[in-house]
Amino acid sequence: MSSDVRTVAVVGCGVIGASWASLLLSRGLKVIISDPAPGAKEGFERYLQDAWPALEANTATESTLAKNFEFIDDLAQALPYADFVQENGPENADFKKQLMETLDQYARPGVVIASSSSGLPSSGFIQQCRRDPGRILVGHPFNPPHLVPLVEVVPHAGTSTTSVSTALDFYKSLEKKPILLRHEVPGFVANRLQAAINNEAYSLISRGIVSAEDLDTAVTSGPGLRWALAGPIVTNALGGGGGPDGFMQRIERLGPSIRSWEQDMMKHRFDWSDESLAVLKKESSKWLDAADWVGLKEKRDQVLLQLLKAKAETSSIR
Amino acid sequence: MSSDVRTVAVVGCGVIGASWASLLLSRGLKVIISDPAPGAKEGFERYLQDAWPALEANTATESTLAKNFEFIDDLAQALPYADFVQENGPENADFKKQLMETLDQYARPGVVIASSSSGLPSSGFIQQCRRDPGRILVGHPFNPPHLVPLVEVVPHAGTSTTSVSTALDFYKSLEKKPILLRHEVPGFVANRLQAAINNEAYSLISRGIVSAEDLDTAVTSGPGLRWALAGPIVTNALGGGGGPDGFMQRIERLGPSIRSWEQDMMKHRFDWSDESLAVLKKESSKWLDAADWVGLKEKRDQVLLQLLKAKAETSSIR
Repeated sequence: MSSDVRTVAVVGCGVIGASWASLLLSRGLKVIISDPAPGAKEGFERYLQDAWPALEANTATESTLAKNFEFIDDLAQALPYADFVQENGPENADFKKQLMETLDQYARPGVVIASSSSGLPSSGFIQQCRRDPGRILVGHPFNPPHLVPLVEVVPHAGTSTTSVSTALDFYKSLEKKPILLRHEVPGFVANRLQAAINNEAYSLISRGIVSAEDLDTAVTSGPGLRWALAGPIVTNALGGGGGPDGFMQRIERLGPSIRSWEQDMMKHRFDWSDESLAVLKKESSKWLDAADWVGLKEKRDQVLLQLLKAKAETSSIR
Repeated sequence: MSSDVRTVAVVGCGVIGASWASLLLSRGLKVIISDPAPGAKEGFERYLQDAWPALEANTATESTLAKNFEFIDDLAQALPYADFVQENGPENADFKKQLMETLDQYARPGVVIASSSSGLPSSGFIQQCRRDPGRILVGHPFNPPHLVPLVEVVPHAGTSTTSVSTALDFYKSLEKKPILLRHEVPGFVANRLQAAINNEAYSLISRGIVSAEDLDTAVTSGPGLRWALAGPIVTNALGGGGGPDGFMQRIERLGPSIRSWEQDMMKHRFDWSDESLAVLKKESSKWLDAADWVGLKEKRDQVLLQLLKAKAETSSIR
């Protein structure tokens, strides 16, 4: 999939911005980066150096591409060169309101401005945009964006359909997997699904049903393995015997059991009280204190790359 | 890890029993199989033939081992030869009550009787056991048991600690990943976690927020990839900056946002009404009718094997 985008502005270069910029460079794009924090450039160069081997392994990227970025001081002067803007400022509506006003002022007409906001819908921070808020939307990546393919595209009610399709096409051209939310909801899709599983996990651990270590094993050696390869809907259909009819067959067969489990889960929802949090903290510490943290994130990312490769080589598995 | 178990009785040989039996054979055990259904033996032989290449690839198993099973007609005569019993009868408390009475009557003293029950706790079907209900527990595998490592070990209040540790050791000797539930809860751990994510998935789809296809992509290209490699607790800790303190740091930083998402999720829980189910059915069909089902399960299982191999080769990733 090709795209007309040649130059991308990455505004805000913390962990998320740095990861976006690394990915964009590896795909042959010119990246202009804005971040007022002292040491931002050096921080990015370190991040890029760490991330590059994985990107090279993944796409046979030429190493010269890693140099195709520029840190800029003056948005007014540099932003008109951008064909796409990816904003990664702090998760704060007031901050984003001001920043979006500036980005909207200086980006060329028609250029899409996507926010990496992880839960705030863009309707909450476009109020000060005076030129074209219709080209603003959320493009929420998943950490780390240079490895995890998901991007949640979330338009506000006034976002133009052209901006939506431009963003979807651009992310696909990066070999990302964008999904489209038809309406804004707090937390978007993936963070809501995570919140759902986490609440039940916290409940089971704080009630003493299972250790935090065994809870993690339940996922990494059970449904988590399947969710990496087939989503909840296809997994349900496979559980109902496979094929399009499997989904409703599973619901007919297991529906009553599932509803009884749900009732018990509702009765025992994790309530976020100080008392429950104290037990959760104590129980999770037993596991996290014992876990082997040396290079854990790097090892996870290595296996993640192998997993993505195995998936890419197998048709109809996505 | 070694085990004193040499002969295992697999009672009930549908999909779950057949998968258990295939795994047990590949690990060098003698398997005696009981299933009164017509054609059960032929069905098992077909299952074994399909499953064997993956088992051979996984553990360099000798092909002669695949012959080390025997179908039995008379539990009274054959069961005393078993060192471990894995029951896989229908998910029906009355049926299991009668079956457990028989198994308890003929299994040698001290031999553990594990039920593959996927949601019914064993306290619900031990009432007719007259010899030793203390050796009965749930050993709930995840489909397909010969590939997915998780086994949920769920004792009832009267299960002996010896039986629990025997079961845990035996499953570990098969290179499975058993977890221990300290108390019975309906749905156990993994099915409750699945129910949690599924309810929110059904809600988002039936409310028209996202297509069923995009919902699946949100998982397989997002959190599902991470859950295959790190459980919810370690994933949370990594999200909070890594290390043992990352978990509570994430909760302190994101807690207010997460709670606001949860409130919105509670307001819109999937209610299982006929109307909601009809929309869910229609929306999921759009995706499932279009999906490529040819060999989908086999392809998923192939990638699953590669994933398990990549994990096994990387220390501290489980």
